[in-house]
Amino acid sequence: MFDDKNKKVTSIKELGEFKLIDHLTKNFELNDPSTLIGVGDDACVIDFKNSLSVISTDLLIENVHFDLTYVPLKHLGYKSVVVNLSDIYSMNARPTQITVSLGISNRFSVEALEEFYEGIRIACKKYKIDLVGGDTSSSDKGMIISLTAIGHVSKNKVTRREGACDNDLLVVSGDLGAAYSGLQILEREKAVFSVNPKSQPDLDSYSYCIGRQLKPEARKDVFELLDELNILPKSMIDISDGLSSEILHICKSSKIGCNIFEDKIPIDPEVIKICDEFKINPLTAALNGGEDYELLMAISQKEYEKIKSHPYLTVIGHFTDTKSGAKLITSMNEEIDLNAQGWNSIS
Amino acid sequence: MFDDKNKKVTSIKELGEFKLIDHLTKNFELNDPSTLIGVGDDACVIDFKNSLSVISTDLLIENVHFDLTYVPLKHLGYKSVVVNLSDIYSMNARPTQITVSLGISNRFSVEALEEFYEGIRIACKKYKIDLVGGDTSSSDKGMIISLTAIGHVSKNKVTRREGACDNDLLVVSGDLGAAYSGLQILEREKAVFSVNPKSQPDLDSYSYCIGRQLKPEARKDVFELLDELNILPKSMIDISDGLSSEILHICKSSKIGCNIFEDKIPIDPEVIKICDEFKINPLTAALNGGEDYELLMAISQKEYEKIKSHPYLTVIGHFTDTKSGAKLITSMNEEIDLNAQGWNSIS
Repeated sequence: MFDDKNKKVTSIKELGEFKLIDHLTKNFELNDPSTLIGVGDDACVIDFKNSLSVISTDLLIENVHFDLTYVPLKHLGYKSVVVNLSDIYSMNARPTQITVSLGISNRFSVEALEEFYEGIRIACKKYKIDLVGGDTSSSDKGMIISLTAIGHVSKNKVTRREGACDNDLLVVSGDLGAAYSGLQILEREKAVFSVNPKSQPDLDSYSYCIGRQLKPEARKDVFELLDELNILPKSMIDISDGLSSEILHICKSSKIGCNIFEDKIPIDPEVIKICDEFKINPLTAALNGGEDYELLMAISQKEYEKIKSHPYLTVIGHFTDTKSGAKLITSMNEEIDLNAQGWNSIS
Repeated sequence: MFDDKNKKVTSIKELGEFKLIDHLTKNFELNDPSTLIGVGDDACVIDFKNSLSVISTDLLIENVHFDLTYVPLKHLGYKSVVVNLSDIYSMNARPTQITVSLGISNRFSVEALEEFYEGIRIACKKYKIDLVGGDTSSSDKGMIISLTAIGHVSKNKVTRREGACDNDLLVVSGDLGAAYSGLQILEREKAVFSVNPKSQPDLDSYSYCIGRQLKPEARKDVFELLDELNILPKSMIDISDGLSSEILHICKSSKIGCNIFEDKIPIDPEVIKICDEFKINPLTAALNGGEDYELLMAISQKEYEKIKSHPYLTVIGHFTDTKSGAKLITSMNEEIDLNAQGWNSIS
């Protein structure tokens, strides 16, 4: 968040488009054996042999999806990758390649873009995927990031939004609401900073939630765990818009209802502390906060013994027939209709 | 270019993100047998069996890449697709799917976006490809389009930028400079219109060039012709940034030089007429204009008889050893170094 003011600054004009791409991607090694041709031709070429290709894409716009006043560019690069990989894992597929397109105005220096690509490079290394293409363009509109991720999966292992059945368990990985809580802290610090630029925020006691907001991870470990446990979820989705919204996607696609239980929803104590400070109900953060990038799945009852005490996974409810609708059962044993509070307006 | 003022206008807020995507993509049929899962899940799923996947991506930003004062949204949708398919054909691959992500501000109505998607739908139908995914997002920055195209090709048929050899023929499809000339006309009419909004432009005598600018085509026919003639180019690239720039890409990647001949470069008479009006050298429009989306290839001398009189293809020169560099031989028999005037600054 605090820049070294003596850093070297190279204008993008000095390099030009072709050299800029070469420069930013020269330290990227190829990590995946299926990558035949990476950056530097009209398109990349991938050899998937007999498995299915899975493709996911995202568009991120400055001041809509990210705020560079508190998001360091390296984290932004990392997060841009992770968000897309999460979509690939949610299909039960292994991500293998990404392409990154970038629109940038001349307020960004080459060094700033190096930071951004360093975040991408670290994510590629961690998730063992290859950067294989992209496009760099001028923009009079700040920074725009478009990312496409490619993965593969064998034909009988794809997990879709449809496929959940009556009585299946509703299972979620990790915990929920932390990225949203972290965002509240960052927004508050931004407001404080705008009033008093000399303020030095003490964010240590919020580090888990801020980390979940700035540097989320995709659940590669859960994807691998399911394979190890020999569990094939009947439906799976990643939680980007909030638990409620994602549950409703599965219910709609699978033509089914569900009951989830308030007291089963995994919430970190730090989330509860932050929600208390901001007078938000932690349940609201968990249901509607979004950006958790956890996996939500329908798992057959017969797998219960395999998962019941695993630290990565929590059974939060079960699916029911369509007529019942999607319900939250509160700790007071009240039934409430779930509804999506995700992205629902264009400003 | 002239809107019906009585058209129904639905605000995007009325629909919301999820319904907007459903609404805009509901008329898209699946065209390609390899598409297993299209729009509506976290990622699309493609079954390529034994061929290679080829992926290309582009980012288009309002007022950088397109100007909505003279580009109808339907044409913009169509062109956005074609530009990406051109990259896939240039790898000698058959395009099969696209994903489209869109950033839009609330000045766009649902009906305006329908127009845009109608252009995409027409392109999908014409090129027999499937729309399989994407992302819709709010934007405070006008319209942003990100498109990824996916194709396939058998392993021994990929054409790259590298691979051209000394003595190979340098062959181009179609003619050059028309899209650039069309843009000059549209920019002039925009300036006239801003002074006199009642002016009714007579653009009939410029229709070829304006069509090449607003509604270009990717050279599917040339891709198919090469297959019919059993010609495998040793190198291939599409002409998006201008002939010079693309020749230099092939020369650099193939570590080779070339001679091209001014009087062989195919230029339509309408381009010559427009360049005359604007006092531009037509050769400059052909070499540096860009957006032609023709294919440029290196073809072995032994294939000369097959292509010499084909109306789609023109031999404009030949490759030479590296030391000679990339040269234009003028009609006065002067040698001039080719240099790229393509995109080279970020404003």
